[in-house]
Amino acid sequence: MKRLPSQFFNPRSIVVVGATKKGGFGSGIPRMLKMLGYGDRLYLVNPREKEMEGLAVYRRVTDIAEPIDLAIIIVPRNQVKAVLEDCLSKGIKAVILESAGFGETGLEGARLEDELRELVKNSDVRVIGPNCVGLINPHGKFASTEVAMEKMTPGNIGVIAQSGVFGNIVADWSPSQDMHVSSLVTIGNRIDVDEVDLLHHFADDDKTDVIVLYLEGAKDGKKFQEAAREVSFRKPVIAYKSGRTEVGKKAAASHTGSMSGSDGIYDGVLRQSGIIRANGVQELFDLARVFASQPLMTGCEIGVVTLSGSLGVMAADAAFHLGLSLPDLSADTVGALREPAPPWMNIKNPLDPGPSGLFGIGLEAVLQDPGIRGVIAIPVMPASIVESLIEQGVEPEVLLGDPGKIRRTLPGKPVVTCTIGSDFWISLIRKMFGPYMTVVSSPETATKALWALHRYHRFRQEAPL
Amino acid sequence: MKRLPSQFFNPRSIVVVGATKKGGFGSGIPRMLKMLGYGDRLYLVNPREKEMEGLAVYRRVTDIAEPIDLAIIIVPRNQVKAVLEDCLSKGIKAVILESAGFGETGLEGARLEDELRELVKNSDVRVIGPNCVGLINPHGKFASTEVAMEKMTPGNIGVIAQSGVFGNIVADWSPSQDMHVSSLVTIGNRIDVDEVDLLHHFADDDKTDVIVLYLEGAKDGKKFQEAAREVSFRKPVIAYKSGRTEVGKKAAASHTGSMSGSDGIYDGVLRQSGIIRANGVQELFDLARVFASQPLMTGCEIGVVTLSGSLGVMAADAAFHLGLSLPDLSADTVGALREPAPPWMNIKNPLDPGPSGLFGIGLEAVLQDPGIRGVIAIPVMPASIVESLIEQGVEPEVLLGDPGKIRRTLPGKPVVTCTIGSDFWISLIRKMFGPYMTVVSSPETATKALWALHRYHRFRQEAPL
Repeated sequence: MKRLPSQFFNPRSIVVVGATKKGGFGSGIPRMLKMLGYGDRLYLVNPREKEMEGLAVYRRVTDIAEPIDLAIIIVPRNQVKAVLEDCLSKGIKAVILESAGFGETGLEGARLEDELRELVKNSDVRVIGPNCVGLINPHGKFASTEVAMEKMTPGNIGVIAQSGVFGNIVADWSPSQDMHVSSLVTIGNRIDVDEVDLLHHFADDDKTDVIVLYLEGAKDGKKFQEAAREVSFRKPVIAYKSGRTEVGKKAAASHTGSMSGSDGIYDGVLRQSGIIRANGVQELFDLARVFASQPLMTGCEIGVVTLSGSLGVMAADAAFHLGLSLPDLSADTVGALREPAPPWMNIKNPLDPGPSGLFGIGLEAVLQDPGIRGVIAIPVMPASIVESLIEQGVEPEVLLGDPGKIRRTLPGKPVVTCTIGSDFWISLIRKMFGPYMTVVSSPETATKALWALHRYHRFRQEAPL
Repeated sequence: MKRLPSQFFNPRSIVVVGATKKGGFGSGIPRMLKMLGYGDRLYLVNPREKEMEGLAVYRRVTDIAEPIDLAIIIVPRNQVKAVLEDCLSKGIKAVILESAGFGETGLEGARLEDELRELVKNSDVRVIGPNCVGLINPHGKFASTEVAMEKMTPGNIGVIAQSGVFGNIVADWSPSQDMHVSSLVTIGNRIDVDEVDLLHHFADDDKTDVIVLYLEGAKDGKKFQEAAREVSFRKPVIAYKSGRTEVGKKAAASHTGSMSGSDGIYDGVLRQSGIIRANGVQELFDLARVFASQPLMTGCEIGVVTLSGSLGVMAADAAFHLGLSLPDLSADTVGALREPAPPWMNIKNPLDPGPSGLFGIGLEAVLQDPGIRGVIAIPVMPASIVESLIEQGVEPEVLLGDPGKIRRTLPGKPVVTCTIGSDFWISLIRKMFGPYMTVVSSPETATKALWALHRYHRFRQEAPL
């Protein structure tokens, strides 16, 4: 397995081929690279420009005297081959080919794509693309696409996305989702670098703890299966495979030229390889965030601590569907809660402390229960009541407990949180619970996340030594 | 069918029994009613208080000389019966009983609840509750529970929620979801008023176009089935039934004392009665918002216009699963788009205009296509590109078309929108598209919404004359 060169993620010098004053990517990418601090090691190429962004513009890549780590190519498809040949002559080892119009558009595009594939196969350059936006590396403050880097917090989730636009909008979306990526790579039509390369890359990457994969179809089913299994034994992989139906397959073919394959076969492959399959974008990233911050779950017994009976019932329903159980609480747990609890409070699982003020104490007690392997926390409270209490100087921790402290005392089991309510309330819960007990979007997703933490734990136990 | 008295929704005078200076509901509800303008027709009862909120506090309801439209009862469970007897003596016709601790807590609670049921059965009072928070009527600016009324926009979605806390947090959540309710009623343990009464109420209510039902179990399965079918022929009903599994049922029993019944039977009942079944809270309200603002769909052929190929593939997959089709575009539509389209643009369904700037034109053309009965619009765009274009003075309508204008020209078919991206982008799309082409949370939900609009259209065609 040839590892991806580090030049992709942390280039010391960059050439943008197709830089232009006319707007679009050709204007935006050079502007952004300057903003990210690459101004003194950024080279621009376009035979029809002289000067841009205060930099001389070269006619050809081969005109540049200095060594180049990475080329970003955004020229029309008919010019790509010549540019790529120049990159090879120049000895560049890493190329991000963003141009579109290849296999995804029809026969002529596919022919051009095949030419590029041949050219690359017989060289030592590695190429990401075409029909992609390359990558975003918040740790290294590098991106080959326009993105609000200043809003992104570097994290431990490695993202592999097939499509460029999709990768870009996921990056835009990530700050509001508290989703912190190590790197995000879009692979497009994959004339060279593919999902298998990136699975191995992220498995080796110290900054990545969880791998997210959005795929419309694997390039090589057998290789993918082997890599998925091997990598899954090292790090959790959460995947969303689309193009699952005949209609979806047709759409995928004209999007990234993917052959989506039989969904039944994929389901088997993904299951056997330990990959967690998500059903939708929100679930994909909710699961990734849970894996990025919670310990695995060592059994299928869960506890639910909720201030909404309804949301508790929804979690219980979802648990049953996924084969998780809600066992009775132990005698010790019941005993510990009996004393502070008001007479009307049912001490059972799900535990609903109602307006007793015992949410935090209940959460701690259930998390402590030896028969419980993971917990769903559902803090909800009518907004007007909370706001007036907080105005009166009541600390939110008095109402809900201190999730950070509970987590430090009891770090061994996963806790996932969900809530609904006013904007004020949701912000409060994300701030209080988010860093310790990952906040996800629904009781159903919270339950699926615990299920996935258990399933992956079992898979890892089978790992070859 | 005895109709619910209007006193519940627009009371001319109110008594709060259990008002107290000690905090909680007993303090919050009187304070809020004063704020809502009921100060001069609000009466408070509590034998242990003299004066509150500048109002004299009465010892008993029967001590009040003036006529009372509505009583809100929040005393401990052992005092409820005596208070209810006073309300009957006083001739009050509408009672909201918020006290908890009845059937949901065990045998003693069930016995007390049965006593109340007997008392009410032999009278002409109507009672909502116990174990609920009553109702919220944004049109009349009345609520029997603390809620940020000033943030709620009166709308056309009638909500029936079994549980009090759930109703309350849904109301808190609604402004951020652009979900505008006509009234929201929580029914709790249902000693009298139940989901059947409220289905009929909302069917008759001029301000309500769509009915949302969150239920853990019907009080009377047969009556519910009859009412559901009858009401569905008049207005769409979207339901989320929880307590679907053994574990969920157990949780529901200790929450609202509901017998959840067999999920298979419910599924059949709901399907035959024309009710649309949602799978989760977000989907429940997304579907309601679509029904509240879009026309029904008269066939199963949908078009997808997307700037993200990936999200388009997801919509196509979901459509296939639900039995919707994505037909080829008509020759006229293809012809109309051929001229403005750049050569690389695939003119097919899903239609992905990429960076051509033809999103609005494409959307209009597909919506116009006689073979297409409804459309999913997926406007996405990398945030940094949009922000810099808008900074340069480019109008968002130039990038995406003018959804309001398109809707006015072509009002007959439903259009549902979904997107992901930066906070800025999502706000922009909600503002531009929201009022005309309902914005929902995912491509899967958008597809399910179109499916539901088609399914309900077919159901209505079978309506008895």
